[in-house]
Amino acid sequence: MTPQTLVTATAVRLGPTLGDPSGNLARSIAAIEGAARGGAALIVLPELVTSGYSFEGEGEARTLAETIPGPASDGWAAVAARLGVVIVGGICEVDPEGRLRNSAVVVDADGTVLCVYRKIHLWGIEKAIFEEGDEPPPVVETAVGRLGVGICYDLWFPELARSLALRGAQILAYPSNLSLSTHQDGMPHLEIVVPVATAHLNRVNLVVADRCTAERGNQWLGAALVVDADGILLDGPPAGDGPSSATGTFDVARADDKGWAAFNDILADRRPGTYQP
Amino acid sequence: MTPQTLVTATAVRLGPTLGDPSGNLARSIAAIEGAARGGAALIVLPELVTSGYSFEGEGEARTLAETIPGPASDGWAAVAARLGVVIVGGICEVDPEGRLRNSAVVVDADGTVLCVYRKIHLWGIEKAIFEEGDEPPPVVETAVGRLGVGICYDLWFPELARSLALRGAQILAYPSNLSLSTHQDGMPHLEIVVPVATAHLNRVNLVVADRCTAERGNQWLGAALVVDADGILLDGPPAGDGPSSATGTFDVARADDKGWAAFNDILADRRPGTYQP
Repeated sequence: MTPQTLVTATAVRLGPTLGDPSGNLARSIAAIEGAARGGAALIVLPELVTSGYSFEGEGEARTLAETIPGPASDGWAAVAARLGVVIVGGICEVDPEGRLRNSAVVVDADGTVLCVYRKIHLWGIEKAIFEEGDEPPPVVETAVGRLGVGICYDLWFPELARSLALRGAQILAYPSNLSLSTHQDGMPHLEIVVPVATAHLNRVNLVVADRCTAERGNQWLGAALVVDADGILLDGPPAGDGPSSATGTFDVARADDKGWAAFNDILADRRPGTYQP
Repeated sequence: MTPQTLVTATAVRLGPTLGDPSGNLARSIAAIEGAARGGAALIVLPELVTSGYSFEGEGEARTLAETIPGPASDGWAAVAARLGVVIVGGICEVDPEGRLRNSAVVVDADGTVLCVYRKIHLWGIEKAIFEEGDEPPPVVETAVGRLGVGICYDLWFPELARSLALRGAQILAYPSNLSLSTHQDGMPHLEIVVPVATAHLNRVNLVVADRCTAERGNQWLGAALVVDADGILLDGPPAGDGPSSATGTFDVARADDKGWAAFNDILADRRPGTYQP
């Protein structure tokens, strides 16, 4: 028996206003405060939550980009320390070399910015705006457990989530901006099927934050989700199409047990040498 | 535009009788004939469909095992050639070295046995009965397109399906015996979520054959499925709990187009060097 370590996580759904970083930061901090009042120890914010997403091009993105440390990471560090919560959120970053990055930070419950992840799989016109990251997605020790990070389209690469699980991540956090999609009658959206499968196949707890509110003709799905390491969708997507959240409580230590019934272990059973020549 | 190549596939659900290989073979051939009458050009049978599954141990499995070529592969080769259909089915095999294998064969529409795949991820007590395969799962050219094969628990290893997609498979066939499981209200069984996610993430058409009928206390889910390369569940699981099938028509060539909207390609966008050190 592994010890139970229950953690309550909130996936935030927000609708940033393009061009209003300080207002968006204030709204993200209000959402963090609300989630903490609701009992959350881990709070995940959407991708690019202070800048907005639908830039006209690199020039506009650059006017909205910020450094890390900078206003967003400083603001989240202060509220994390004040409330004792772990925060993951997306930032339109200008990196130390002046390049634009679609980034996420992990802030620990004492206000320490533990890492910056720079998205390695860029979606759509992000390719014309951001430099893709070249560093592995992080797995970091936090107050709520070992946390791995990806951003949005990264979730469509099962090898990335697998690599985080192999490195011991107990929780995966995906700040996202999921495009509105159709779905098949009787089936959840594929943007829900994929994280549920990812959590189940890797026995990891998984949190997806998403955005809402149309922006320059782009619409988002708003699928904030919390999934546990058994692949149970604990909460989400929230009803309606406005700012909201999904909250669930999972056993972090469950992710350390990759056993399946009496004879199997979903990581130890891998045979990569057999099919990856 | 890639040319459309429509193929109708049937995933067969059968309830073999343990210890009656010749009767099970006859029932599998009747199911093939029925599927062909329904228009199927590709017919996938369950795992271990002529032997049954719930062996008391290796000794019993050995009495029900057969060689390849042998009765099952010969029977399927004859019906494949007679009806002009491609068949994938599971066999309890005694290999040329006398070892037991949980195997699947692919029989082309002219009756040629194209390959034998020996399951590399063994589930539960299979580990006490079968020798695990050491050869990569096959991708073979057939009359219906490039076909990749896995068996049941193999589907829980996203790296295996990915390797088949990277090798050009247009259709993945999974002969299976899926254990009966519970599922979450409002969500499909995880045994449905996983193949739908696998098809979507790899842009491959995917067929899962499953078994039914309790056997020595084991119950099966019966989730025969056909999923297209867009992740649409075309048919399945069949209603009820008896022998049945799921049938769907998909565009094989759709699997050759890994593009997603204007800027992305789900295989070309991979960054394995970044996260697999």
